[in-house]
Amino acid sequence: MRMRILISNDDGIYAPGIMALYQAVRDLGEISVVAPHAEQSAVGHAITISDPIKIKTIQREGDFEGYAVVGTPADCVKLAVSVLLDKPPDLIISGINLGPNAGISVIYSGTVSAATEGTILGIPSMAISVDAFTNPLWDTAGQVARRLAQELLQRGLPPDTLLNVNVPNRPMDQIRGFAVTRMGRSRFAEIFHRRITPRGDTYYWLDGELQMLGDLKGTDFQALAEGYVSLTPIGFDLTRHACLPELKQWNLAL
Amino acid sequence: MRMRILISNDDGIYAPGIMALYQAVRDLGEISVVAPHAEQSAVGHAITISDPIKIKTIQREGDFEGYAVVGTPADCVKLAVSVLLDKPPDLIISGINLGPNAGISVIYSGTVSAATEGTILGIPSMAISVDAFTNPLWDTAGQVARRLAQELLQRGLPPDTLLNVNVPNRPMDQIRGFAVTRMGRSRFAEIFHRRITPRGDTYYWLDGELQMLGDLKGTDFQALAEGYVSLTPIGFDLTRHACLPELKQWNLAL
Repeated sequence: MRMRILISNDDGIYAPGIMALYQAVRDLGEISVVAPHAEQSAVGHAITISDPIKIKTIQREGDFEGYAVVGTPADCVKLAVSVLLDKPPDLIISGINLGPNAGISVIYSGTVSAATEGTILGIPSMAISVDAFTNPLWDTAGQVARRLAQELLQRGLPPDTLLNVNVPNRPMDQIRGFAVTRMGRSRFAEIFHRRITPRGDTYYWLDGELQMLGDLKGTDFQALAEGYVSLTPIGFDLTRHACLPELKQWNLAL
Repeated sequence: MRMRILISNDDGIYAPGIMALYQAVRDLGEISVVAPHAEQSAVGHAITISDPIKIKTIQREGDFEGYAVVGTPADCVKLAVSVLLDKPPDLIISGINLGPNAGISVIYSGTVSAATEGTILGIPSMAISVDAFTNPLWDTAGQVARRLAQELLQRGLPPDTLLNVNVPNRPMDQIRGFAVTRMGRSRFAEIFHRRITPRGDTYYWLDGELQMLGDLKGTDFQALAEGYVSLTPIGFDLTRHACLPELKQWNLAL
């Protein structure tokens, strides 16, 4: 039986990363591509509920056909699974993202949110990103995507868990292996650039610099720095279970 | 010393819920309001990095002045703390949201994301929502917001933890108290309504019905159903720590 793989991303259906992903896994099964029509970076887990979601079929350079969705990555996965595909896929892969999704970036990531949505729908899902914003080595990340896709098609994933994959930007023979990691503690130090419109109104551009915090041991950041492919199991139960006893001791009364 | 409270939301600065929140806490300190200029529901933890963020000052019915931001709730908090306020606030409150943010809705919630952003910035933060889409009893939710704001201004919150508050839509004398809860397991059963434009193109409206899954004991859903204000400690480390050993046993090789 042919396996079914759904591909999405947040850089948009015309991005180079999604083509690299498609080419790397195309022979593993029946591939469908449903992705945003344009870049949707940093949309987090947004979904479109107040606007119509338009779609059109597109053809990329004779290589793949797919659905371009005027919506978010999470919209794409919902729409693909509910409406566009005949049957649910066996695996969802989101990427390959240009730039890492490690540490706090995970919560802003559209790439990860597509995989989160797949996981909520009960389908094994992974997000994959390359650790570079310029001169990405798509070939390395593609080979890693292919290797992991084979693994996940066989093994699946633990319930309610997606795999967040970050690939060092190195030639394949310089990748040291896989490392299972946790999301590194970090934050962005915001830099807002203030500008004035020709009419005199103020506006801002959001920019920022990632600051790593605390111990890096065992984190996605460390794996990337040392040349390992980082594999982080990610969930969507946001409860801080460790804090429940403390809060209960507050004994709040109205 | 006067305490400083920053108010934001995702229903927009002209929503009734943010006015109810403002009126409920206005005498607790110096209040600033920085909120989206229009509704931003279900934007998740989106931030605006590819567009300029416009702002303008607005006045609501002689009641409060605030900044209306053409951006997401997370943008509002970043911009307020980095640029618009003289000093960081002592407390951030996001809401009062029209409709509950319980179970899986938390990951789509713009209301919660404003509080998450505040927490990332190291500021005690809470999100507050009323469990009704029609005929909300703002007075009850406002009183609860006020009570909790007083508490958080005194106690703070555990590190990396925000408080997600859901208030039953009942008169105050029918609220049974506070319950410390976990995020209930749930998913949306998607319903896509298919339509055709006058020009013959297909588009969809996303709709869905919340399905609760698994045991409801101890969840936000159960608290609301039983008439308790639900208090869920929420974090932003998405690592599924419990899955790390299993993944390490995979012993993946390239």
